[in-house]
Amino acid sequence: MISQKILSITCPSRGCHDITSKITNFVSEQSIDIGLCHIFIHHTSASLIISENADPKVLVDLETFMTSIAPDGAPQWIHDDEGPDDMPAHIRSVITQNNLSIPITNGKLALGIWQAVYLWEHRTHQHQRQITITLHV
Amino acid sequence: MISQKILSITCPSRGCHDITSKITNFVSEQSIDIGLCHIFIHHTSASLIISENADPKVLVDLETFMTSIAPDGAPQWIHDDEGPDDMPAHIRSVITQNNLSIPITNGKLALGIWQAVYLWEHRTHQHQRQITITLHV
Amino acid sequence: MISQKILSITCPSRGCHDITSKITNFVSEQSIDIGLCHIFIHHTSASLIISENADPKVLVDLETFMTSIAPDGAPQWIHDDEGPDDMPAHIRSVITQNNLSIPITNGKLALGIWQAVYLWEHRTHQHQRQITITLHV
Repeated sequence: MISQKILSITCPSRGCHDITSKITNFVSEQSIDIGLCHIFIHHTSASLIISENADPKVLVDLETFMTSIAPDGAPQWIHDDEGPDDMPAHIRSVITQNNLSIPITNGKLALGIWQAVYLWEHRTHQHQRQITITLHV
Repeated sequence: MISQKILSITCPSRGCHDITSKITNFVSEQSIDIGLCHIFIHHTSASLIISENADPKVLVDLETFMTSIAPDGAPQWIHDDEGPDDMPAHIRSVITQNNLSIPITNGKLALGIWQAVYLWEHRTHQHQRQITITLHV
Repeated sequence: MISQKILSITCPSRGCHDITSKITNFVSEQSIDIGLCHIFIHHTSASLIISENADPKVLVDLETFMTSIAPDGAPQWIHDDEGPDDMPAHIRSVITQNNLSIPITNGKLALGIWQAVYLWEHRTHQHQRQITITLHV
């Protein structure tokens, strides 16, 4: 048994957007006791991560980190057609995740107590992002 | 068909802990010819990686690398409630994996000859970590 | 239902090799309407990524980025038995992916319009690499 849902998410600017409830809602609509929940993002300049869900300062520091290793507008990037954040967005995407799989246990998404699922928008301006959730047993 | 097992693993300190045998043991207890083995860690300051299984110097160099890009106690980290290794642990987690899927072929976990699965503890002090293994066909 | 295929791919040198058509060909040979396609690489010095499929300059910049954070032959690497690119290849592997899962929707691999699957060879000389594709519903 497998069920799939496509979601469109508006990201107003660069940063981590908590999408956990969108995923747990879809899981709770199905009657799966044990299984897996797969999430995929159909883009190369935004990504999916699981990170700490309590302190917003973690999300600030994640941006600081990415800026330190892949700065916007650095002279070494030769791919810059869409601006100074173009190539850094691809790099951030490649070293994080475009797909996640999370266990379903006792009918629920089995995230740890401090875990949230974030859609990390890496472009500085607003983008519409599409993800596909696939549940399977 | 799907089967799931939850494991609790004690990590005495920062570093990569080989958990390959725990996974191959669970696979060998089931009778799956072809399928997938999914491993998930329920934490945001420890992660899962597949890396070289022969030379312990690789694991030393992986620590050196992480220290070079996300140093403990650096002044730029504003999330430091749990100490100088707090934010670096979240960063290390985000740029490695919290979930892995490995093929099962001919009834065995189909790792390459030089591959091992490691639980990478990113905090400097001892932590108890929980992982869930899910086998499915 | 599950089907598996093992592929051997020759990578003449360091760089990203587009393997998308090898995967879509296998998907189109099966009759799966909704499901998942899992790809695994059996090595620790090459990896799998999904990245931008249009501008080859992105792939150049990805190399530039990796060289900036994990340079070949740097004096801090103590694992160098196979040469200056030995340890950097393991690092590049660990911070990218060794496994990907991509949705199958309406019988097709549901990549975004700008997404391609690359086998990223991290060693500078030619290597033969093995990947396993597993399709499941």
